[in-house]
Amino acid sequence: MISVIGYYTTKFGELWEKSLFDLVEEALFGVLKECHIEKGKIDAIFFGNMMGGTLENNLHSPSKIAEIMGTHIPVFRAEAACASGGAAFHLAHTYLEANTGKTVLVIGAEKMTDYSPEEVISALTAASSGEEQESGLTFPGLYAMMAQVYLQKYNYSKIDLSYVSYKNHYHGSLNDKAHFRKKISLQEIESSPLVAYPLGVLDCSPISDGASAIIMTSDKTLLSKQKKAIRVLSTEVATDTISLKNRKFIDGIEATQIAGKKAFHKAGIEPDSIQIAELHDCFSIAELFAMEDLGFWKKGSAGKRISLLETMLNSGNSLTTNTSGGLKAAGHPVGATGIKQIGEVYLQLTKQAGSRQVKNAKKGLTHNIGGSGGTAIVSIFGV
Amino acid sequence: MISVIGYYTTKFGELWEKSLFDLVEEALFGVLKECHIEKGKIDAIFFGNMMGGTLENNLHSPSKIAEIMGTHIPVFRAEAACASGGAAFHLAHTYLEANTGKTVLVIGAEKMTDYSPEEVISALTAASSGEEQESGLTFPGLYAMMAQVYLQKYNYSKIDLSYVSYKNHYHGSLNDKAHFRKKISLQEIESSPLVAYPLGVLDCSPISDGASAIIMTSDKTLLSKQKKAIRVLSTEVATDTISLKNRKFIDGIEATQIAGKKAFHKAGIEPDSIQIAELHDCFSIAELFAMEDLGFWKKGSAGKRISLLETMLNSGNSLTTNTSGGLKAAGHPVGATGIKQIGEVYLQLTKQAGSRQVKNAKKGLTHNIGGSGGTAIVSIFGV
Repeated sequence: MISVIGYYTTKFGELWEKSLFDLVEEALFGVLKECHIEKGKIDAIFFGNMMGGTLENNLHSPSKIAEIMGTHIPVFRAEAACASGGAAFHLAHTYLEANTGKTVLVIGAEKMTDYSPEEVISALTAASSGEEQESGLTFPGLYAMMAQVYLQKYNYSKIDLSYVSYKNHYHGSLNDKAHFRKKISLQEIESSPLVAYPLGVLDCSPISDGASAIIMTSDKTLLSKQKKAIRVLSTEVATDTISLKNRKFIDGIEATQIAGKKAFHKAGIEPDSIQIAELHDCFSIAELFAMEDLGFWKKGSAGKRISLLETMLNSGNSLTTNTSGGLKAAGHPVGATGIKQIGEVYLQLTKQAGSRQVKNAKKGLTHNIGGSGGTAIVSIFGV
Repeated sequence: MISVIGYYTTKFGELWEKSLFDLVEEALFGVLKECHIEKGKIDAIFFGNMMGGTLENNLHSPSKIAEIMGTHIPVFRAEAACASGGAAFHLAHTYLEANTGKTVLVIGAEKMTDYSPEEVISALTAASSGEEQESGLTFPGLYAMMAQVYLQKYNYSKIDLSYVSYKNHYHGSLNDKAHFRKKISLQEIESSPLVAYPLGVLDCSPISDGASAIIMTSDKTLLSKQKKAIRVLSTEVATDTISLKNRKFIDGIEATQIAGKKAFHKAGIEPDSIQIAELHDCFSIAELFAMEDLGFWKKGSAGKRISLLETMLNSGNSLTTNTSGGLKAAGHPVGATGIKQIGEVYLQLTKQAGSRQVKNAKKGLTHNIGGSGGTAIVSIFGV
């Protein structure tokens, strides 16, 4: 049995007074304190980060983290574009499957706001193929193309996308660690300046700084001392081509479908057993894809169902999504995102989510995507 | 039981006609062919690479590799500076410990020669601390400081370092995949232009391109069909501070000592049971450190014993080191190095090393270092 026994996150936002490793340090010691665990109890550390090499010229973060912690234990860095946090979590879980009686710290972090927009945009395009980079395609551009296919195929319009940001900003207003805590109206979203049609600026997640950490254990003695813990029921990774043009279809993300199907099978449950899900809403369209690809909603129906706000807090329905505010409102410090998603599920399932608490949440899911869908990591948790 | 069942490496060198992912493609399909295994038999891929983000603007290599292979299986990238290959191997081994009956492909690659020296030097300094970078310390500079302490403390001189490159270039002359196949004289090494005293250019490993891959399995049925296989007896990772100034000592590498001790303990053998070792000789001094830190030679004795050329091929002694030519002569395409080391041990233990074959080699060791010693990975193999 592998359990998450604690979570800490820094505030997400434009944290100009903190470096990447200041954020890492805060999250490392924050989560140890949260769990009342000495650093000597940690057997290995897994670190999710995308742009530390290009933006901070650090390509030896395992050693930097060892220095911060004052330890000689194994430290590993995982990188899978925006799924770097989820990849670090998955590898840490594998480590615990191989080693019973061990405890690991998983941390994700990214520092993105102290650079010129050109530097950050160039670093972010590194998640797409060389061909796409050379043709000038940005990330909003790639998701805009996917959105256009979806909207046309199922007869929706740009307006139908707005409900995702509307809901997630409302949730973010209840999360004091969120980058944006401002509720926004459907009208504001629909009329926000276009980035790449049909995506306006309020359809897009922001550039953020932040670090999030969890502690996870396969040590029964330690687990018995922890009051608040959740179980990892499954975690699955799937990949796809990095270039959109090589995909079987682009009105959804096949890697999510594959990882999701495996994760539900392994956990032995169906989508309707999930009460809360943190989905990778890097763009509004991405949350609609996730709802369909994971089997929560029927293919082609998300454009309609989102407008009913069924997945909003206190809607009275069985599933609430992105209570943290999602990437859209909580922010998207790339490497931290996959860990923050798990942390939000942890808070919800252990009844520590305060004003955004979903009642009777027993099972939760996280969905972390790299690039335009070249990597998908789906994990399921329960109490 | 986890076994390495096949190995393929591209030529190492200045491969201007090949991109990073051309090299990856050659090694991926090369090792599948070598093992007569269909790609559908591979359950996961682990990729070791350091500078794909900074030099190639690729920060989603898992998806790029999925595209090259035409697969949806999990792909993970590990990064730990010059120990990236070893880290990928270690994580792959952990995956197989957690999953019996599975088969993984581990690949390391680096493309370093198509860039300006400034770009490559800047990318490489990313393995050291921000403080060291800002003070203008290069990698030869860091190892030169360590070498000075060692030479002074144990009463050696610059000349005593030369035997490492002399031996490794002789071995490289026998390896048709090596970057340099030219034997060099002690006189040439001693009088080579200084990079950072006491290290001359012929004390330093080169900037190289290359990709190396192995296939590793925990599937007994598959293993029974493979004629040439070696067992992984242990693999251990240790870390240390990224900054030299924060280390307990710098006339050796503590991370190597810790990982080495654990690896021997886990394998249940002593250093004198090893017949071949691939050591991380990024600089001549580094091989002397490795010999002492791993317990092959007594602390402070390496400067004398190396001059006896005890570890050279056909010296008649029990241990031969860096038969591939080491980083010095075989080349050092950073991410590939840790995998090439394992590949060389595989070739030696399965009697496929041709003119550089060590007779009666039954147990081998690999030693992969990140930066100036902030990460060390030691693995032991047997037949």
